[in-house]
Amino acid sequence: MLFKYDVIIIGGGHAGCEAAAASANMGAKTCLITMDMNKIGQMSCNPAIGGIAKGQIVREIDALGGQMARVTDKTAIQFRMINIGKGPAVWSPRAQCDRGKFIWEWRTVLDSTPNLDIWQDQADELLVENGEAVGVSTIWGVEFRAKSVIVTAGTFLNGLMHVGRKMVEGGRCAEPAVHNFTESINRLGITSARMKTGTPVRIDKRSVHFEDMEEQKGDVDFHQFSYFGEHRILKQLPCWTTYTNKEVHETLKKGLADSPLFNGQIQSTGPRYCPSIETKLVTFPDKEQHPLFLEPEGEDTNEMYLNGFSSSMPMDVQLDAIHKIHAFRDVKIYRPGYAIEYDYFDPTQLKHTLESKKVPGLFFAGQVNGTTGYEEAGGQGTVAGINAAIRCGGGESLIMQRDESYIGVLIDDLTTKGVDEPYRMFTSRAEYRILLRQDDADARLTEKAFELGIAKRDRYDWWLEKKEAVNKLINFCKETPIKAQEINSQLEAIGTTPLRAGCKLIDLIARPHISLSNLSEIIPSLKEAINSPENRKEEIVEAAEIKMKYQGYIEREKIVADKMHRLENIKIKGHFKYSELHEISTEGRQKLERIEPETLAQASRIPGVSPSDINVLLVLLGR
Amino acid sequence: MLFKYDVIIIGGGHAGCEAAAASANMGAKTCLITMDMNKIGQMSCNPAIGGIAKGQIVREIDALGGQMARVTDKTAIQFRMINIGKGPAVWSPRAQCDRGKFIWEWRTVLDSTPNLDIWQDQADELLVENGEAVGVSTIWGVEFRAKSVIVTAGTFLNGLMHVGRKMVEGGRCAEPAVHNFTESINRLGITSARMKTGTPVRIDKRSVHFEDMEEQKGDVDFHQFSYFGEHRILKQLPCWTTYTNKEVHETLKKGLADSPLFNGQIQSTGPRYCPSIETKLVTFPDKEQHPLFLEPEGEDTNEMYLNGFSSSMPMDVQLDAIHKIHAFRDVKIYRPGYAIEYDYFDPTQLKHTLESKKVPGLFFAGQVNGTTGYEEAGGQGTVAGINAAIRCGGGESLIMQRDESYIGVLIDDLTTKGVDEPYRMFTSRAEYRILLRQDDADARLTEKAFELGIAKRDRYDWWLEKKEAVNKLINFCKETPIKAQEINSQLEAIGTTPLRAGCKLIDLIARPHISLSNLSEIIPSLKEAINSPENRKEEIVEAAEIKMKYQGYIEREKIVADKMHRLENIKIKGHFKYSELHEISTEGRQKLERIEPETLAQASRIPGVSPSDINVLLVLLGR
Repeated sequence: MLFKYDVIIIGGGHAGCEAAAASANMGAKTCLITMDMNKIGQMSCNPAIGGIAKGQIVREIDALGGQMARVTDKTAIQFRMINIGKGPAVWSPRAQCDRGKFIWEWRTVLDSTPNLDIWQDQADELLVENGEAVGVSTIWGVEFRAKSVIVTAGTFLNGLMHVGRKMVEGGRCAEPAVHNFTESINRLGITSARMKTGTPVRIDKRSVHFEDMEEQKGDVDFHQFSYFGEHRILKQLPCWTTYTNKEVHETLKKGLADSPLFNGQIQSTGPRYCPSIETKLVTFPDKEQHPLFLEPEGEDTNEMYLNGFSSSMPMDVQLDAIHKIHAFRDVKIYRPGYAIEYDYFDPTQLKHTLESKKVPGLFFAGQVNGTTGYEEAGGQGTVAGINAAIRCGGGESLIMQRDESYIGVLIDDLTTKGVDEPYRMFTSRAEYRILLRQDDADARLTEKAFELGIAKRDRYDWWLEKKEAVNKLINFCKETPIKAQEINSQLEAIGTTPLRAGCKLIDLIARPHISLSNLSEIIPSLKEAINSPENRKEEIVEAAEIKMKYQGYIEREKIVADKMHRLENIKIKGHFKYSELHEISTEGRQKLERIEPETLAQASRIPGVSPSDINVLLVLLGR
Repeated sequence: MLFKYDVIIIGGGHAGCEAAAASANMGAKTCLITMDMNKIGQMSCNPAIGGIAKGQIVREIDALGGQMARVTDKTAIQFRMINIGKGPAVWSPRAQCDRGKFIWEWRTVLDSTPNLDIWQDQADELLVENGEAVGVSTIWGVEFRAKSVIVTAGTFLNGLMHVGRKMVEGGRCAEPAVHNFTESINRLGITSARMKTGTPVRIDKRSVHFEDMEEQKGDVDFHQFSYFGEHRILKQLPCWTTYTNKEVHETLKKGLADSPLFNGQIQSTGPRYCPSIETKLVTFPDKEQHPLFLEPEGEDTNEMYLNGFSSSMPMDVQLDAIHKIHAFRDVKIYRPGYAIEYDYFDPTQLKHTLESKKVPGLFFAGQVNGTTGYEEAGGQGTVAGINAAIRCGGGESLIMQRDESYIGVLIDDLTTKGVDEPYRMFTSRAEYRILLRQDDADARLTEKAFELGIAKRDRYDWWLEKKEAVNKLINFCKETPIKAQEINSQLEAIGTTPLRAGCKLIDLIARPHISLSNLSEIIPSLKEAINSPENRKEEIVEAAEIKMKYQGYIEREKIVADKMHRLENIKIKGHFKYSELHEISTEGRQKLERIEPETLAQASRIPGVSPSDINVLLVLLGR
């Protein structure tokens, strides 16, 4: 049996779904190969999307014409804008989702995507001809031929699950592992290694003493994930917080001898910023408590997720320890936490397009590149899907820049620095945080996405409409004069210094404690401008306000970014034979040789390549 | 890790879900162990519930306080009363369901059932002490202890899937098989053997030429599955019909050499009344076409189910053959049909309670007993769940009679006759069909279910209300006199013989072509009686009308059934040492010894036990 496509995607998780949708929306004849059509877009761990820096990525995926934000909005059961007390550079949207509905919403999205087929089967071997990827064969004996192959296999490659000393093969609880496929890729000179991740117990809410926990409600405001599309529609539910305590820690410590993380059973590295509860105990022995978040899994289910209690301790230790928390003294669980080890491929062997340097036509996205997180996976999937389609249809590859998106930061970090532990995005990884805000991913990316063809007309039109409305509002503020005597009494009333002389409205907005909203209560013409009948006016007001308030910071960062762009524009790939450059440090030579940076800027970010090495290269380039 | 329950159920399919709900509703502390909480109540094959005789079973499950009918009503996307042109003895409700929503509805039902916990894990070994089942151990090392253990493992025990010459281990497409568990049961002297079943391709509706098919719409009437609860709520969708043709058959025949059913790869027997398309060709070589039904899988999905085309032929043969059907000339599939072989246990080693004769405390229900069908599974699950709970809490066991329910027929057939191929229910298997109608399962069973405690007050009250309303309407018809001259002209107008003398209204209703509905147009007081404000009046009118119209048949069958009851009341278990009864035929002796019938009636139904053997037993009993 032979099927021919432009692009095939192996794996229907968060990377695979975005890659499939992106490729098909770019016009490539696409097939998503998934082991289980009932698990497409499965949230293997936390039933939540977004969070710090991750929420920005989801906004970027959306601005690029991707789907994760829309699926999230349709299935959200709690929405919060995190960090809203800090500057807007770090505001991050986050939503709890209904786990079951999330899957079916993804199915519906993919089902309604033209050019996209789905095939239920399991990849067995990558097919290669003349050094290029040409397809994949499956365990049911199907041969798929394609111009581009995207591997988005998540934790399934040689997956091995651990609970205490018990080990079971599988790609996820109750799902088979994939053998043989990694090996077929290794044979092409692509290096793989092992990583580890984990997930906490699932709890029956009927057994929880909620009266002993603190309730955490979601926001009731206009925010949502997608710039475009429907507002959240499901019933909104609270999360709950509590803490571990000394007794919990004592119980866990007694089990450490049987902990696969500490008895040598697991050798691979887990996510530093999402550690298991036993790792937290060992890393922070002086801490007397750790926070826990009990999160709903859906509108109608009793299943709840105990965020903060990821573990692969023996089951009885996990349960004994949980029972020592007052609110959980009678708790019943559906299953324990477990750890899983899986194969990933060295991302420094990838180009910024996420195509393999070694095997043209072969792309990787998601956990197989050593990242953790649905959002990181989705971002990579989007880029891989776009570039896989471009490889078929022609056109210039999409390379996301570090000053343009967190996705750009992510991919540049992966391909330049590599990983030795699961990579998670943080705002601190971005040098241009004020340029990469959650409110303006559309401003950064939608134009480009429309030109690429992945974003469709309706999305683009909505962006144009928003842009115009934002500019109109900013222009109004620029042009509207304010006289001191007209406003000073009200300014004093809201606790801000009175004006000495007249100014423009925009000058007032730059002040702290002043918002368009409170000014509009004072200035009727502003109120009118804000209430003009644009669609989603709150989003527009927010975008305009941030642009006006932080204009100075934004411009300063743009200048720095532009400087760096000069280095980004100096292409060096293929220009040097690094092994012969004895002017450069040995470490620098070796790292440059291994990574083969595209640009001088990328070279400067390689760990072990020093500023003086970069100067040598500049000199050799005659600059 | 040790958990203690009254009842544990191994497997969350249709048998397991009903067993779990039944046991918990009976008040037993119950745990359902399932490999995958996202697949609870999964419809592994056809996305439909009910059909001939099966629909009656679902009504019986409902009348007993079970859940399948309510889950079906909530997720139905097409409802039809089959055989409505024939007598009401064979009317059978059938519904297409939304496959995805069906699962989540079951989750919701189980989640809201008191006394019921769910545990996600895989059974590894049955635990036995002193010859009694005492629990189960799991692959994750948990020990469950219980007074009753119900095995509802479906096709998962040593499951092996086939597509052409390709074989893959698994309990269902994309799900692992369970090894070791069968063997742990075999060691107790319980016999297992292999059966086979299969499922057809899944089709992408975007690739179907619907204009070349015939549409089959559902009923728009009052019928529903549950006697109690909400009406169907989802969007109603059509099915579509077409036929195979000579070209299709030629294509398939060319592949027969690689067909696992005909090349010796599969040795076990599949369902006779749900044969694969290749079996149909071989069994009926002269037939030039076979009907096919294209059924929707859900409200929002493109996936469709090709009923009638179950196959384990090589994938390319399946697809080539389908493409030869005009409406499917461009068809795309999500996956091919496949066959699966699995272990079942000899049901003649079971009592009528579905408890093992060899291992007290061990119950079996569903496909592991050699049946096929969600409904047959659900019926057994209900009975096993009730009896497993009774074993813990005390009370008389529930034994369903053949004149009382299809479930009784099913269990009596299984335990008395055994199976050598997957057993499917038909109306022809019941000797008292007019007593086992879809409209009166509540009359047959709800009183008993309420006494048992499984049916709750609200369900029982609704039944009492319905019973009273039906009786009121029948009494009205019995008491209302009709004068010939008042009605004869209208009777002639609707084409039925005029009355010679006056009569009661009930006498008119016995006539063919006369219904309460058309009489009510003639007789204003009847119209008023029908339109009195009872809840669900159409259901009440139907029940009353059938009781009045078929009163003669019903009474005659009751007399026959009562005669048989005398034999049913002659308990013979433990009374004879059959091997020493040389008055009885050798075959009769052997079969009686193997089955150990409970009653003389059961003895009379054992294949190989002759009427003269029964007479010998009667004589020996002194009757």
